[in-house]
Amino acid sequence: MTYDQALRVCETYIQSLVTNDVDAILDLYAADATVEDPVGTEARTGQDALRSFYMGAVTGVVAATLTGAPRLAGNEVAFPFQVIAGQPGEEIQINIIDVFRFNEEGKVDLMRAFWGSDNVGAKA
Amino acid sequence: MTYDQALRVCETYIQSLVTNDVDAILDLYAADATVEDPVGTEARTGQDALRSFYMGAVTGVVAATLTGAPRLAGNEVAFPFQVIAGQPGEEIQINIIDVFRFNEEGKVDLMRAFWGSDNVGAKA
Repeated sequence: MTYDQALRVCETYIQSLVTNDVDAILDLYAADATVEDPVGTEARTGQDALRSFYMGAVTGVVAATLTGAPRLAGNEVAFPFQVIAGQPGEEIQINIIDVFRFNEEGKVDLMRAFWGSDNVGAKA
Repeated sequence: MTYDQALRVCETYIQSLVTNDVDAILDLYAADATVEDPVGTEARTGQDALRSFYMGAVTGVVAATLTGAPRLAGNEVAFPFQVIAGQPGEEIQINIIDVFRFNEEGKVDLMRAFWGSDNVGAKA
């Protein structure tokens, strides 16, 4: 996994949240991938469980942007980003750090999303 | 662990890097804490191993700042920061995301630092 490859995965993920493209998101994941979003909640494993999760998660996302460089270390990358979601005039922003772990095929086999209530607020 | 408590730990950690205060850093950690810095390298466990690591790690640090809000999720917090290190006129900057896991006493029992060669550059 090179830095450019990892960066492309992060950018594809974020862009696919905005376009509500669940298939594009699932294509980044291994068949038996696990997602813990947010960290501290029950993890979901496998493409079917991830599809159900993302069908909900992408709802209402209107913008998402990297807010710093992805940090690639070993076969994992951590990246900070901000999501804007909600109806016009009622948007909220959520500041998130996701960690992706890559398998040997370059697919994400573990995702952990760090965010909590103090990272959610009215759009600035 | 409240958000304000987690924020204070992150700020103490970063400030202690700048002041080269290894004792203050070690005080944030549990006795049997493990540090993996950067992720993908061999982990160090226990206060003695952590002291040796930080005696080296703080050398030459001249500044360090949070570059975004800490993300507290469950008993873990991820936070993005930038370190400036090196002699005057030859400083480098390193963009890092650390993840701290807290035990029931509020001490860090696992730290994983995400950064790689693409996150290191001449000071802007």
